[in-house]
Amino acid sequence: MVTIDTNRLEETFERYSQIGRTENDGLHRLALTDADREVRDAFVTDLEALDVDVRIDEIGNVFGRREGTDSSAAPVLIGSHLDSQPFGGRFDGQLGVLLALETLRALEDEGVDHRRPIEIVNWTNEEGARFKPALMGSGTFTGEFDVEETLDRTDAEGVTVEEALEEIGYRGNEPCEPREEYHAYLELHIEQGPKLEEDGLSVGIVEGVYGMSWLEATIYGDSDHAGPSPMHSRRDALVAAADVVTAVRRLSGRVADDVVTTVGELEVSPGSINVIPSAVTLTIDVRSYDDEVVGELVSHAERELENACRREGTEFDLEEIWRIPHTEFSETVREVALEAAAAVDAPHREIVSGAGHDASYVNEITETGMLFVPSVDGKTHNEAEYTEWEDVLEGAKVFAETTRRLAA
Amino acid sequence: MVTIDTNRLEETFERYSQIGRTENDGLHRLALTDADREVRDAFVTDLEALDVDVRIDEIGNVFGRREGTDSSAAPVLIGSHLDSQPFGGRFDGQLGVLLALETLRALEDEGVDHRRPIEIVNWTNEEGARFKPALMGSGTFTGEFDVEETLDRTDAEGVTVEEALEEIGYRGNEPCEPREEYHAYLELHIEQGPKLEEDGLSVGIVEGVYGMSWLEATIYGDSDHAGPSPMHSRRDALVAAADVVTAVRRLSGRVADDVVTTVGELEVSPGSINVIPSAVTLTIDVRSYDDEVVGELVSHAERELENACRREGTEFDLEEIWRIPHTEFSETVREVALEAAAAVDAPHREIVSGAGHDASYVNEITETGMLFVPSVDGKTHNEAEYTEWEDVLEGAKVFAETTRRLAA
Repeated sequence: MVTIDTNRLEETFERYSQIGRTENDGLHRLALTDADREVRDAFVTDLEALDVDVRIDEIGNVFGRREGTDSSAAPVLIGSHLDSQPFGGRFDGQLGVLLALETLRALEDEGVDHRRPIEIVNWTNEEGARFKPALMGSGTFTGEFDVEETLDRTDAEGVTVEEALEEIGYRGNEPCEPREEYHAYLELHIEQGPKLEEDGLSVGIVEGVYGMSWLEATIYGDSDHAGPSPMHSRRDALVAAADVVTAVRRLSGRVADDVVTTVGELEVSPGSINVIPSAVTLTIDVRSYDDEVVGELVSHAERELENACRREGTEFDLEEIWRIPHTEFSETVREVALEAAAAVDAPHREIVSGAGHDASYVNEITETGMLFVPSVDGKTHNEAEYTEWEDVLEGAKVFAETTRRLAA
Repeated sequence: MVTIDTNRLEETFERYSQIGRTENDGLHRLALTDADREVRDAFVTDLEALDVDVRIDEIGNVFGRREGTDSSAAPVLIGSHLDSQPFGGRFDGQLGVLLALETLRALEDEGVDHRRPIEIVNWTNEEGARFKPALMGSGTFTGEFDVEETLDRTDAEGVTVEEALEEIGYRGNEPCEPREEYHAYLELHIEQGPKLEEDGLSVGIVEGVYGMSWLEATIYGDSDHAGPSPMHSRRDALVAAADVVTAVRRLSGRVADDVVTTVGELEVSPGSINVIPSAVTLTIDVRSYDDEVVGELVSHAERELENACRREGTEFDLEEIWRIPHTEFSETVREVALEAAAAVDAPHREIVSGAGHDASYVNEITETGMLFVPSVDGKTHNEAEYTEWEDVLEGAKVFAETTRRLAA
């Protein structure tokens, strides 16, 4: 068992939460900005105080290595991300990094022996808010994205990732790739949904991540003056789009229980108060843990577009812009986490994640597991994001104990 | 009877249509731009060649006066506007000005006597595309808008109307107000709807203009991550907005036959593919010739917003940003136009306009009438706008003969 120092953890969490803090106690700490530099500096200082070996790779991922008794053993990697959404919350990402840090500190304090090296990581740009895509650091590290392409990515002002890294002093020398085989990766994150809270549990042991599809559709009608055009002569792209939005909402109750479906973007052309809309572009996000269900949802969505357009006399284009199968995390790591949760007596359940995480990419290169702690009201990506401190502590205990067991 | 010179009219129409012409044979001739300067220069040159007295008022309305036999008689005003929508058509506005010009030319050629002076006018900025509001020239001339406020209006780049007028050399010296009482105003315009074409008629004699209301509603839901948020916990502003769009479309068939209802603008926040929309702002445009019906439509729209928001657990604000009662044009002018149409044997009917025109404001200060010619497929405000030449000629004959009778 590893003993968490509650006061130290709380002090550290409060201190890090001051960096990029918003008026409403949220975080505005976009990747590779000054606030990101400041929190990275704090992180590196804290790692160096622990006497761990810090290294920074060429896209700014920060690693710290605590040696085990067998320095040639495959290490255990733990961590998450310190960047935030615009006006996001204090728990998303940051909590995972700080529980990993507290784990290293607790092991150090107590002189707990572990055979394997333990490496902590802060992944660059998980959120994808300033630079796209999201999961940039872990995706590049695991070979999903090309390093040069990542460095050339630009923000809205045309600044490249490379320039931004140099500006904040985090363009490291290490190649962005694994130096050796890892034994396992473990990440704790907030759930970002309401399930643990609904069940009154503190810890979720994550089986895997939903598969998903992103669709983009454009509906074409006829632009005309809203006054002299009788209703029967109209081909209104927005009327057809409204049918699609309603149908997409209904889809979730039609194919399987766990399905979620969302229209998040919708843009109207020409978008003038007295002009009948000639075109609407909208996105459809469908998710399920069952990849076949995702396929069915895509077919249903296409059929609903056809129906809506037939009714209104409009036409449409449909493109699938992203499809990702569901992720199943390592059974081995999950078993260890379940045993650890039982050992520390934390109220827990197994759970599936609706959102992707750095762990989804790391899962490609090593045995990977994730832990969730509850999100009050399921809120996330806004300043009201919150996790009860008692749940944080239960999560910390399970996380540290799982790490210890993986590294034993 | 006045004889229209078909070739001259066609040559003039083609010549003017070159100014601001688009690749697809439309017009892009926004008010107070270089293209507007060029077409105004052509217009002034053509007026001076006719020996009419040209004057330009302080907001750029261009008048030309042809004296009658009694120079102290109240004049007849005829005209429309030479500015266009962005990538609009060649007929909207321009046709009315050029048929007024052809009328003056035909009267001159044939030496037709008329007692009253006839004034031709090109109203500044009817479309409201570069500078808001629409109907700027006629609205200011008739006292609806204050001259100083109009001159201070700015475009998207912050250029004022006054600066733009000086830039193109059309900041005139005349006060923007009637110098004397007018006897009548007559304007020919394209219908911008399909009714004349559906009836196979060439000319519409306009009884009046629909009353209307413009509403702006904002629906407030909760922003959340599209993955981990189960459907039952969502309050999705776009799902509620889709219900409103569908309900607004349905309203048109519920209250009265002539009703038209449109949602032309709809904006989603935050508008991200994997985020549940937290807010949607949309506009509702409702019109009827019956002002009481417009009032009923506004009540229905509010009730539909309430229903949609109750279903989804969202909230809303609703504001009526504009209400204008229906316009009834002069019975006297209408009678003269009906007699003229019968005299020249043009296939015609009475019709109501769904759109506002400069004539709506001029109706406040003098006996006003309007003529419509058909719009193929009802298309307008786009490059495909078209009127068959034989309909143009029928319109020209009725317009010239109505003008002659009004001025007799």
